[in-house]
Amino acid sequence: MKLTDPTQTLAALIRCPSVTPQDGGALSTLGSMLSELGFSNERVIFSDTGTPDVDNLYSRLGSGGPHLMFAGHTDVVPVGDSGAWSHGPFDAQVVDGEIYGRGAVDMKGGIACFVSALARLIERKGVPEGSVSLLITGDEEGPSINGTEKLVAHAAARGERWDAAIVGEPTNPDQMGDMIKIGRRGSLSGTLTAEGVQGHVAYPHLADNPLRGMLTLVDGLMHPPIDAGNDRFPPTNLEVTSIDTGNPATNVIPARATARFNVRFNDIWTAESLTDELRGRLEQAAKKTRLRPGRDPVRYTIEFDERTSPSFLTRDEALIETLSAAIAEATGRTPALSTTGGTSDARFIKNYCPVVEFGLVGKTMHMVDERVALSDLESLTGIYELFLERWFASAGER
Amino acid sequence: MKLTDPTQTLAALIRCPSVTPQDGGALSTLGSMLSELGFSNERVIFSDTGTPDVDNLYSRLGSGGPHLMFAGHTDVVPVGDSGAWSHGPFDAQVVDGEIYGRGAVDMKGGIACFVSALARLIERKGVPEGSVSLLITGDEEGPSINGTEKLVAHAAARGERWDAAIVGEPTNPDQMGDMIKIGRRGSLSGTLTAEGVQGHVAYPHLADNPLRGMLTLVDGLMHPPIDAGNDRFPPTNLEVTSIDTGNPATNVIPARATARFNVRFNDIWTAESLTDELRGRLEQAAKKTRLRPGRDPVRYTIEFDERTSPSFLTRDEALIETLSAAIAEATGRTPALSTTGGTSDARFIKNYCPVVEFGLVGKTMHMVDERVALSDLESLTGIYELFLERWFASAGER
Ligand SMILES: [Zn+2]
Ligand SMILES: [Zn+2]
Repeated sequence: MKLTDPTQTLAALIRCPSVTPQDGGALSTLGSMLSELGFSNERVIFSDTGTPDVDNLYSRLGSGGPHLMFAGHTDVVPVGDSGAWSHGPFDAQVVDGEIYGRGAVDMKGGIACFVSALARLIERKGVPEGSVSLLITGDEEGPSINGTEKLVAHAAARGERWDAAIVGEPTNPDQMGDMIKIGRRGSLSGTLTAEGVQGHVAYPHLADNPLRGMLTLVDGLMHPPIDAGNDRFPPTNLEVTSIDTGNPATNVIPARATARFNVRFNDIWTAESLTDELRGRLEQAAKKTRLRPGRDPVRYTIEFDERTSPSFLTRDEALIETLSAAIAEATGRTPALSTTGGTSDARFIKNYCPVVEFGLVGKTMHMVDERVALSDLESLTGIYELFLERWFASAGER
Repeated sequence: MKLTDPTQTLAALIRCPSVTPQDGGALSTLGSMLSELGFSNERVIFSDTGTPDVDNLYSRLGSGGPHLMFAGHTDVVPVGDSGAWSHGPFDAQVVDGEIYGRGAVDMKGGIACFVSALARLIERKGVPEGSVSLLITGDEEGPSINGTEKLVAHAAARGERWDAAIVGEPTNPDQMGDMIKIGRRGSLSGTLTAEGVQGHVAYPHLADNPLRGMLTLVDGLMHPPIDAGNDRFPPTNLEVTSIDTGNPATNVIPARATARFNVRFNDIWTAESLTDELRGRLEQAAKKTRLRPGRDPVRYTIEFDERTSPSFLTRDEALIETLSAAIAEATGRTPALSTTGGTSDARFIKNYCPVVEFGLVGKTMHMVDERVALSDLESLTGIYELFLERWFASAGER
C-alpha cells in the first residue's frame, strides 16, 4: 500500500466492517500504517455497565514538543438498507471518480487523509520536530462512553500533554473549504411534568386539566427567544421534542402530562445559568395559569438530564489562522468559523488543549451510498500536509 | 315480598349480580314484580358485531292513553375492589338505616322506588287511567349499543307511542330534591394531527417542529370561549384530553404530533355547526403559525369521531312542572332544572317523547360501598307516587 495515496489508505479502512461497536479490524489496519511511519501504538479497551466494551487506539510519533493531536473515530453507523447501495458498503469501489463505502466521509476519510498527509510530509521533509499523536476511538457513533472521553483522560493520566488538536469529522456542508468548527453549542435536556386532577369531561369544574397549564408552561419556555446569539455563536435554541399524555379515554380529563425538551446553547450561558433561566421562566409562566378564581397555579416539576454538554469556543488564534490559511491556499476559499451543529468528541478534548474540527464534505454521511470524490481526498490531504508543516514551523517559533 | 316497600324491591334487585353485560336474573326478578301488578312483559335480546348480546325488558300496564314511560337499566358497573366493601356488594344488607349494594343508587334503587310507587298507587287508587310502561335495558353501563336505543325503536316499530318519559338515573348531587335533568349537552370528539419535518435538534432550520404549530392550533381551539351558555345550558366546554408525540429521542425534532379533544356543547350548536366553528378556528390559528419568513403555515388534519351525541332540551312544561311540584311537596325543596353532566340514555328517548330524569342521590354511584338511605328510598317512592297520580290526572284533562 502506498501510504501517500489517500484513496488507498481509505480503501483499507472501509474494508474493515467496523459498524459500532464492532472494530472489524479497523484499528489494527490503522495501527499498521502508523507503525510503518514510525508511530508507537497503544491499544486500550474500556468497559462500563450497560454499554459494550470498546477498542481504542492512542498512537504517538516523536517524544518532544510541540505536540499535535489528531482525533477521530473508526466506527461507523449501520449500513441501513444494504440492498439500496449502488456498491457494497464495505467494498471501497471507485466509480466515476468517487469511492463508495460506509465511513467514507464520517470519518475514515478524514483519518486516511491525515495518515497520507503525514506520509507525504515525512517523505518530503522528514519527521516533524515535535510530536504527532492520533487519538482514535471505536465509540463515537455509539453511546460515546467508552471512547474519546476515557481515552484522552487515560493518556493525560500517564503524562501526555498536547498543544493543539484537530478533529477530522466532516465539517463542510457543500464543498471543501466551507467551514471550520471552532467550538460547539452546549446541550441541555429536561423533562417537564404538569400535574392536574383527573375527572370526567362532563364535570370539568371537578377536574383540572394539566394540558392547559402545560401549554402555558411550554409557551413560557419558548418565548421570548432565549438570546440573540453573538459574534461567534448562533442564538440559543430550545426545541420541545415530545409532549405526551397517554390518555386513551376521550371522556376523561387526564391527571398528568409530560414534555421533553432540548436546548442548544451558546457561551452566553453555562449549564447552570441556563437551568436557572428556564426555572425562572417556568415560575413566571405558572403564575399565568390561575385560570379560574380560587384556583392555584399549575403544579409542575422540572428535571434536567445529567448528561449535559457545556458550550465551548476555541481561543487559539494561531491554530485557527494556520488551518484557515492552509485551506484558503488549497481551495481558494476562506472557511467560515462556525459553532453550529451537533455535539462532537471535541467536547471531551477542549479541557486538555485548544481544538478545531475540519474534514471532508458531510453531505452523504449516515446515508445509503456514502461516498467521497477522490479530488476531495486529494484536497484534504494537501490541506492537512500544509497545516502540519506550518503548525510545526510556527509552533517551534512560539 | 311486599311490593309497596322499596327496601324489599331494591334488595331483590341488588341480589341479582348483573354486572354489565351479565343479567344475573335481574330482568326476570323485575318482570315477576311487574306481572304481579298486572303488567305484560316482553323480553328482547339484541346483538351486534363486536359487542355482547344483551337482554332487555319492555313491560306495559294498560292499553289506552295517556301513556307514561319509565326508563332505566338493571346492569351495574363492576364491584371494583370487592375486599374493600364493608358489606357484600350483592348482599343487600341494611346497616344503620342504609342499604348497601352495587346498583343501590345507579339505578336499581330508582327502578325499585318506581315499582313500589306504582304498587302503592294501585293499592290506594286502582290502576291509573291510561298506560304505564317500563323500558329497561341491561346495556347502559356497557357499550350502550344493544340497549335503550334499539329497544325504544323496536317498541315504536310495533306501534308503541308515549306521551312522556321519566328516566330514573340518580340526578341529585347531594340530597333528595336537588335536581331534575331536563336535557343534556351534546358530545363531540375529534383528533387533530399536526405535521412537521423531522430533523436533528442541532439543525432546527432544516426541520420544522410540529409541536410549535400544535400549541397554536390547540390554543385556537380553546380560546376565546366557544359561547357563554344560555338560560337553560351552561357554556360549551372543550377539553383537550391527550396530546401525544411518542418521540423517545431527545436530539430529534419529531415529524408529527396528535391531540385528542372532547366538546360538551349546548343547544346553541348542532354537531354540524360546531364542527364548522372548530374547523374555522383551526384555519385562523394555522395562519398564525408562519413562524419564519418563507415558511408555510403548519399542516394539520382534523377528524371528528362518528359517534356524536346532539344536545337536547325537554320543552314539555307540564311534565317538568308536575315532577317539580311532586318533589317540592315531598322534600320541601325546589329542584334545579339542569342540563349538566354526562350523556344518558335519555338521548335515545327524546326523539319519541318528552323526557326528564329524576332519581336518587348519586354520591356513591360507581364507588365501593355504594348505598342508599332507606329514608331516600321512601322519599323517592313518595315523589314517584305523587307524580304518577298527578300526571295521569292532568294528562287526562289535556
Ligand atoms: Zn463522525
Ligand atoms: Zn346509571
